[in-house]
Amino acid sequence: MSTEPGPPTDRVQVRRLPKRASYDPAVLHGILDEALVCHVGFDLEGQPYVIPTIYARVGDTLYVHGSAASRMLRTLREGVPVCVTVTLVDGLVLARSAFHHSMNYRSAVVLGRAVEVSDPREKEAALRAIVEHVVPGRAAEVRAPNPKEMAATLVLRLPLEEASAKIRSGGPLDDEEDYGIRCWAGQIPLRTVPQAPIADGRVPDGVAPSGAVLGYRRPGW
Amino acid sequence: MSTEPGPPTDRVQVRRLPKRASYDPAVLHGILDEALVCHVGFDLEGQPYVIPTIYARVGDTLYVHGSAASRMLRTLREGVPVCVTVTLVDGLVLARSAFHHSMNYRSAVVLGRAVEVSDPREKEAALRAIVEHVVPGRAAEVRAPNPKEMAATLVLRLPLEEASAKIRSGGPLDDEEDYGIRCWAGQIPLRTVPQAPIADGRVPDGVAPSGAVLGYRRPGW
Repeated sequence: MSTEPGPPTDRVQVRRLPKRASYDPAVLHGILDEALVCHVGFDLEGQPYVIPTIYARVGDTLYVHGSAASRMLRTLREGVPVCVTVTLVDGLVLARSAFHHSMNYRSAVVLGRAVEVSDPREKEAALRAIVEHVVPGRAAEVRAPNPKEMAATLVLRLPLEEASAKIRSGGPLDDEEDYGIRCWAGQIPLRTVPQAPIADGRVPDGVAPSGAVLGYRRPGW
Repeated sequence: MSTEPGPPTDRVQVRRLPKRASYDPAVLHGILDEALVCHVGFDLEGQPYVIPTIYARVGDTLYVHGSAASRMLRTLREGVPVCVTVTLVDGLVLARSAFHHSMNYRSAVVLGRAVEVSDPREKEAALRAIVEHVVPGRAAEVRAPNPKEMAATLVLRLPLEEASAKIRSGGPLDDEEDYGIRCWAGQIPLRTVPQAPIADGRVPDGVAPSGAVLGYRRPGW
């Protein structure tokens, strides 16, 4: 019988509806690997900012990247506290009362301080992981970053040490007296579905999309 | 000829890739109305937190709600600076170089300070708007909040005064010398697709889902 791990710190302990919490790294990794973008929260001169960005997980590390001119990355690299949140919306939960309406979701919250990746090999591997996070198999198909592009790119590393996941699934839970209401109730599951690829106008004749493109799926889809 | 409005404040001016910015309220409203969840950023004891939550827009006001016990809402109601970010991922952009890979997205960032809604009529209307934001037409089908539920719920109002949108669309933009690479390049559009509704086990025989459920679509889908 496995024991569910507890929260690594008080700060990431799920307080609202703690039965929805998970501190299991496998659950956290699953959410991080399936989602495409994260929302990065940081403070600048007393004002919080929340910025969406691409990322990748490698083991127990989360990488974000961007232009060396990015205000967000230049702020984070100072080692300020950061929160990275990832959310997957799995469906709508329609109850018999307005109050018990909800959503099914899986979310992950990571707290910590980011560090600039200066080792060239780790930086290259992180950038490759970010391409692979978005389109598995794509990194081998394209031109790798050249020294000028590497210099123009900042990569930051955030350890997945202080993190929690929160999950809701299943149908509505109504008040007992509301089950008599003659109102349909249940779930509307939502799925993200890749559409047919659209070729760039300058793709040469005879160059077809690879299996990575044609068979595009996220883990979990 | 219409003139595109400029940023309302320096703080919400889009600095990275300013050509992707919009300060047009119609663009902002379109993004807020299509998305399901926002990410709320706030500071608590020097640590930023980013929490996903449901919301609704009514005119130039954004409403968020939750349990009166919610740490996020109890913090925000003190009038601390907040950032609310909404992101729609429209597709993946596959370039010929790793460096020029991107995503198509529409995002909105709202800064300000939230205020608790204490007027009972505004609070009822806001809660109704939140149900309608998630499932248009649903509020009329379900039991409205009773006084106990109203008392257990906090609603906060954030004006859409200091906000900006950022949009990327279209195919990859490669370096001129990379167009000779024999590599497929283009876009993989992504769509969120509602699946067949799943009825709760206690829906009485003969009670079918309404058109609001069977024809579920977000604006813009």
